Amino acid sequence: MFSKVLIANRGEIAVRVIRACRELGVKVLAVYSDADRDSLAVRMADEAICIGSGPAMSSYLRADRIISAAEIGDVDAIHPGYGFLAENANFAEICSSCNIKFIGPSASAIAKIGDKVQARFHARKIGVPVPAGSEGIVENEQEALQAARRIGFPVVLKAVAGGGGKGMRVAHNDVSLVQGFHAARIEAEKAFGEGGLYVEKLIEDPHHVEIQIVGDQRGRVIHLGERDCSIQRKNQKLLEESPSPILDAGLRKKMGRAAVRLAESIHYENMGTVEFLVDGSGAFYFIEMNARIQVEHPVTEQAYAIDLVKEQIKVAAGYPLDKNWDGREPVQHAVEMRINAEDVWKDFRPSPGRIEALQFPGGPGVRVDSHLVLGATIPPYYDSLLAKVIASGQTREEALARLGRALDELVLEGVKTTVPLGKAILRDPDFRRGDYSTTFLPRLLAAKGAEKT
Amino acid sequence: MFSKVLIANRGEIAVRVIRACRELGVKVLAVYSDADRDSLAVRMADEAICIGSGPAMSSYLRADRIISAAEIGDVDAIHPGYGFLAENANFAEICSSCNIKFIGPSASAIAKIGDKVQARFHARKIGVPVPAGSEGIVENEQEALQAARRIGFPVVLKAVAGGGGKGMRVAHNDVSLVQGFHAARIEAEKAFGEGGLYVEKLIEDPHHVEIQIVGDQRGRVIHLGERDCSIQRKNQKLLEESPSPILDAGLRKKMGRAAVRLAESIHYENMGTVEFLVDGSGAFYFIEMNARIQVEHPVTEQAYAIDLVKEQIKVAAGYPLDKNWDGREPVQHAVEMRINAEDVWKDFRPSPGRIEALQFPGGPGVRVDSHLVLGATIPPYYDSLLAKVIASGQTREEALARLGRALDELVLEGVKTTVPLGKAILRDPDFRRGDYSTTFLPRLLAAKGAEKT
Repeated sequence: MFSKVLIANRGEIAVRVIRACRELGVKVLAVYSDADRDSLAVRMADEAICIGSGPAMSSYLRADRIISAAEIGDVDAIHPGYGFLAENANFAEICSSCNIKFIGPSASAIAKIGDKVQARFHARKIGVPVPAGSEGIVENEQEALQAARRIGFPVVLKAVAGGGGKGMRVAHNDVSLVQGFHAARIEAEKAFGEGGLYVEKLIEDPHHVEIQIVGDQRGRVIHLGERDCSIQRKNQKLLEESPSPILDAGLRKKMGRAAVRLAESIHYENMGTVEFLVDGSGAFYFIEMNARIQVEHPVTEQAYAIDLVKEQIKVAAGYPLDKNWDGREPVQHAVEMRINAEDVWKDFRPSPGRIEALQFPGGPGVRVDSHLVLGATIPPYYDSLLAKVIASGQTREEALARLGRALDELVLEGVKTTVPLGKAILRDPDFRRGDYSTTFLPRLLAAKGAEKT
Repeated sequence: MFSKVLIANRGEIAVRVIRACRELGVKVLAVYSDADRDSLAVRMADEAICIGSGPAMSSYLRADRIISAAEIGDVDAIHPGYGFLAENANFAEICSSCNIKFIGPSASAIAKIGDKVQARFHARKIGVPVPAGSEGIVENEQEALQAARRIGFPVVLKAVAGGGGKGMRVAHNDVSLVQGFHAARIEAEKAFGEGGLYVEKLIEDPHHVEIQIVGDQRGRVIHLGERDCSIQRKNQKLLEESPSPILDAGLRKKMGRAAVRLAESIHYENMGTVEFLVDGSGAFYFIEMNARIQVEHPVTEQAYAIDLVKEQIKVAAGYPLDKNWDGREPVQHAVEMRINAEDVWKDFRPSPGRIEALQFPGGPGVRVDSHLVLGATIPPYYDSLLAKVIASGQTREEALARLGRALDELVLEGVKTTVPLGKAILRDPDFRRGDYSTTFLPRLLAAKGAEKT
């Protein structure tokens, strides 16, 4: 096992990784920006080094300073968390060349799945279904139009280097396709420094279902079922659950096998997620793969009673995977609500501020992952995630009842949050029946006048 | 299902029952003493009625006032929690005569198991092993001596009406027996208003293992495995775990069957615990039965992924037990540490005060059951339990590692607590190996100079 790990991240995921290291007996070096000087992660870590000022470009994205900190602290490994440098092949490569284990997949695997067109081709080649689409990048609006007419509207334009819904446009006809092409290209160039787009058939009213996979250094890859992440707006997930209300054991097995096949074919090591859209008929389509531990990983941890972050560290240290896990069925139902510092009724505008009162829910079946402490100030530089409340139970109904009472118990004053929206989702009869798709949340918000669909 | 339940208790168990009611959609009426006016339970309840001043004799033990509150609030049922009136057959009888469902066993079952001599006889009669002992109450020191000589020293004198270690004395010879007889009788009279004693063979260096049972109104009784409660001093449990390090599936089955047989033979309904001593050879001896939900119930909830308090309310409302549970094996390992407001190094003297800083641990495998809020004052009238930290994991090792990091994370300032002792237990190599008995904690404390064994 490693003796010391540097955590190249902040917020709740830094706290989450510290907890895993503690339980493994591994020392932790935290790096932090000025703005996070008083954070819980810094307080919990064995050592901490400041790597710059608030904006991520001056700290959490500075590979050079992180590597310097790693060398000063003499760590064996770096855990990148999610976001920031987590899926940066170059950073993984630098770690490797400095003889520091990057806790994630190899630089070449990151690069392979980071190029969405290449990943899509590759999936199709090995027999994993993908939505119909263009043969590759569409260089101009004419090529985009040809592709769209061939596969049939509606289609979606996607950025090759995309993520988080940026550089993405839905088109229902020639006119909206041409408009969308230019808007998406500009957005993609701005967000990723790379404007390449491709065209895919739009899967209407789908569930967004992702399969958790993990590979060890002996080439063994297993899956740990799915998370249903359909409750999202503008590709920002808000509530996730496992198992998915639309998967049965048969479909789970089929999708799990497809995800494992994909990961094995690129010699994938460490944690990863294979994302699919699933339509009403149970047909599923690969959309992309994520080379990181995800925000919503606790849903799988609770549903499968497995600690993914500890396993992630263990496989990075060379431990083999437990053979008993493969194809295991969930032991509980789990659901996670993201508590963000956002004003839901003002287009989810970030709501920075000071935490004036704080009491987390407790009791059976309730887990809270958070970096919040009373009196903390939410800095304006980073994402607005304050806490994840994860509820689990023997049945979906029990998990939802627990999430409801946990949100009722939560005391969190000083900033506006997504808690009222979480309560509204839980009250919705369609949601309670498990009858929802990616269009659920925009429709709910529109009905409440919070935003236009 | 009930529409409204009165909780005739306070502290963490009142909060625990409120959580269960919330998840079942049942309204809650809290009753409280003056001293608990600002408590979390009162804040969480739908309605609350003050029933008197701080001392329990003036409030939580006043059956008349509780029944009046129940009638004012028009409740269907009363949950007694543990302690106070929870095992008072008379109170159960009053509830029944007022047409209010007492959430617990029948008055007659409570009475049967409340008399320890009768319970012991009954167990022996139906073939559940008990330690050798006197045929019944020993009326005087002469009878005690005869019994002790017949069964052989060392023996233990026990109060018929006993509980919590009161009216109990170990004797290794004639002299200590005679001395102990008088001391125990006086103590028992004072504590229970009833001085009757009996004599039992002392089981040396045993594990204290209790079997969780539950019966429904259709006469079905099942068991949900064991809790090992050997980490105790003066019969006060401090740390409990499930499964027990000394039970295998075979012994669990045997002890589980014995517990179920005992409960069935008295038509036991609702939650109960059958307590055994288990010696090094795996022989087990019934010592007593408890007719309540116990402080340490979360250990079973985590190990078996079942909500005992909700099930307790459901069987009281007439629901049948789930047939799939009987003889189920644990799905996780769970361990609970009791955080008491006590000064461990001053003979566990209560440490009342104000909570000046409070942050509970979180993350995977950690559950906290507590009524504490920042700024709360610990009243001097009640037991000193502040919080229960329950850790679970795939293995005992993982559960212990999580408990350790949870205790490290806990911030609780303003009163002295049992947290440092918990950490010392977790560091002990014998404990880590699972090699301990009821003599473990007194020896550890003696080694640390905290008290004499």
